[in-house]
Amino acid sequence: MLREIGLDRVRMVRTNGGPIVLGESRRSGPGPCLLIYGHYDVVPAGPRAAWRTPPFTATVSDGFTYGRGACDDKGPLMCHLAALRAWLSDGDRPPIDVVCMLDGEEEVGSPGLRAFLQRAGRGLGATVAVVSDTRTLGPDRPTLITGLRGGLVCRLRLTGPARNLHSGQYGGAIHDPAEALADLVASLHDERGRVTVPGFYDGVRIPSPAERARLRRVAPSDRALLATAGAGHGHGEAGWSAFERTTLRPALSVSQISSGERGSDSVIPATAEATISLRLVSDQTPARIAEQLQRALIARTPPTVGIQLVTRKLTRPWRIAGTSPALRAASRALAASFPHPPVALPSGGTVSVVPELAGLGIPVILMGFARPDDGMHGPNERADLTLLDRGAAACTRLLAELAASPGTPAPERAVAVLAR
Amino acid sequence: MLREIGLDRVRMVRTNGGPIVLGESRRSGPGPCLLIYGHYDVVPAGPRAAWRTPPFTATVSDGFTYGRGACDDKGPLMCHLAALRAWLSDGDRPPIDVVCMLDGEEEVGSPGLRAFLQRAGRGLGATVAVVSDTRTLGPDRPTLITGLRGGLVCRLRLTGPARNLHSGQYGGAIHDPAEALADLVASLHDERGRVTVPGFYDGVRIPSPAERARLRRVAPSDRALLATAGAGHGHGEAGWSAFERTTLRPALSVSQISSGERGSDSVIPATAEATISLRLVSDQTPARIAEQLQRALIARTPPTVGIQLVTRKLTRPWRIAGTSPALRAASRALAASFPHPPVALPSGGTVSVVPELAGLGIPVILMGFARPDDGMHGPNERADLTLLDRGAAACTRLLAELAASPGTPAPERAVAVLAR
Repeated sequence: MLREIGLDRVRMVRTNGGPIVLGESRRSGPGPCLLIYGHYDVVPAGPRAAWRTPPFTATVSDGFTYGRGACDDKGPLMCHLAALRAWLSDGDRPPIDVVCMLDGEEEVGSPGLRAFLQRAGRGLGATVAVVSDTRTLGPDRPTLITGLRGGLVCRLRLTGPARNLHSGQYGGAIHDPAEALADLVASLHDERGRVTVPGFYDGVRIPSPAERARLRRVAPSDRALLATAGAGHGHGEAGWSAFERTTLRPALSVSQISSGERGSDSVIPATAEATISLRLVSDQTPARIAEQLQRALIARTPPTVGIQLVTRKLTRPWRIAGTSPALRAASRALAASFPHPPVALPSGGTVSVVPELAGLGIPVILMGFARPDDGMHGPNERADLTLLDRGAAACTRLLAELAASPGTPAPERAVAVLAR
Repeated sequence: MLREIGLDRVRMVRTNGGPIVLGESRRSGPGPCLLIYGHYDVVPAGPRAAWRTPPFTATVSDGFTYGRGACDDKGPLMCHLAALRAWLSDGDRPPIDVVCMLDGEEEVGSPGLRAFLQRAGRGLGATVAVVSDTRTLGPDRPTLITGLRGGLVCRLRLTGPARNLHSGQYGGAIHDPAEALADLVASLHDERGRVTVPGFYDGVRIPSPAERARLRRVAPSDRALLATAGAGHGHGEAGWSAFERTTLRPALSVSQISSGERGSDSVIPATAEATISLRLVSDQTPARIAEQLQRALIARTPPTVGIQLVTRKLTRPWRIAGTSPALRAASRALAASFPHPPVALPSGGTVSVVPELAGLGIPVILMGFARPDDGMHGPNERADLTLLDRGAAACTRLLAELAASPGTPAPERAVAVLAR
């Protein structure tokens, strides 16, 4: 598609997973250069029974397109390609240089792309980047994301007896690894919902009262946030709103736990395992948190079981100042394309490429086009087609806004091409 | 095979699972009647990679036969059929009446057979029963089991948000069902290894100092018991030996726990489930324990998650007096067939048919022919062929010993037929 819409130097960079896909549009001479990041890989579809349509067929119905990746991130990625197609029609060029960089490993932490950026990132010449892999507040209300949580994933395996045992023969004499795992996992939070890993909260930035007051006004209420989750009750660290707990506060979740087999009722399983997912905020250091977590887990493991730990996907948290000129340009582009102006908000998610792009010394614009109720990572993931249309308009406009020197009006041509 | 060896009235009784297989040998007139119980069903093979031979092909090697069911209970069951064949050769009959009753649902709690016994058990006319579904202390050292633990299985399911959620978007705001399950499971034992379900220990019989002293002499040491388990460390209720903890004390094990999927690192799973296996001792009442457990689980479930409970396989614990004439006959039969006389011991296992047979008002002889290291319910289950030979001899002899009035010598013919 990059070739079809007229980009130059379209090429693939091999990784151990899905390749990086690159394409460019360069004008002669100096000027801003926008790096457009998107990812075409997806998380697994999960249990098929929960899907109302085939997960890997895009099914359009009632103004939505359904399928794994619809909103994370294939749909939003297409907004940028639509914008480039608009600017590139009739042999013309976008008003600024563009490098399009599409990731095939975002959902596994972008290892190949991160290595590529460290090796060749500065050579791309980008002066600003845009990533559309976050959520809006709703179909009419776009967001500009001013912070992302970092994270890490810790895979934990407890080993007990040499083999599965009969619970009649040995029940009462042996430490059941499933129980030892439950104890270990249960120990990770205290009664107030705080993570009990020593040193975990060191470096967590405390938001100002003004910032908290602004969030109370503009961010989703506890009730709204829980409604989009399909959850009847909130839960977590006392003293913070649900939105704050998912954005400004770090969190520890258990993504997977398993021991034994269904139907084997009278077995003491030999092993038990869990996957612990941590979300980190400024200014927690993932490598230090990983070490603290591992040390705590090892210290709490009783001598009756063995422990194996693998920690992966270490990603730094990221923040951008609301006053950044790049954010202001994006804000104007969104305001021109949506019924309401954008809201600047921190996000709870992790987009591992963002801290890496920021490491190139450039501002990163996060303007996403997924609704909170689009079921990202769940069954029946979908994208709102109206929102994607508006997103395409905003992406088109963004190039014009970034081209405009502060004070001069932005070029309008492509925006008109895209209009209906 | 029952027909082949010459039993009469060989027939099958339908159940919802494997049918009950029956066969008889009756003499005219009154006299003792031995009910021989065995089961031909097995637990699942479990992970194939852990097996060195195909689990459902009997593979003979180095004096053992390997395969699922080798020692639990197909091999020991064959000892009785060999004994009947010996007595029935040349058109003769065993010295007492015999009813052979083979179960196809033992590993799922014998629901069909229990119903059959309640309906038609007394009509079988049995005056004594024998069950060979327990372990010896070793190949040379037979056991007579004087008690079995009862049990129940509780399947527990926690429901959280309406669907799997993204841990970036919601981590910190929602109660992760995997964590709630870990808390719940962790709450079931205190630091001294005792089960925390209120009322759980009501009715647990305290053994006499003499009984404990005898067990210290004849029962396996902690070290020996842990060695057969392939476990480096013991664990459980403080103040009791490992053998006591697995026989005279009740126990709670977690046989299975699961939530989420491997490879989905950034998900908050919507549900979590566990299977809790309880072993009960005299005089705990399974129905009351089930109620107490369910009440405790419900009371400890926070409002942030839902709970669903299914309790199954309720089985009463069972005991027999060491002075029973049936046990004495069995003791003589074993002493004549093994290098060492039998040891009378309680067992930690549950054989759900035994309390049911006892409910017919008859003594039950538990003389098993599985070694402790035969891997019952684990991978590479095996049976010791020497032990099975001795077991067949003891089963043959048992019929003679039961035929002998106290004081008169037992008939010897079949024992000679079987001898090598």
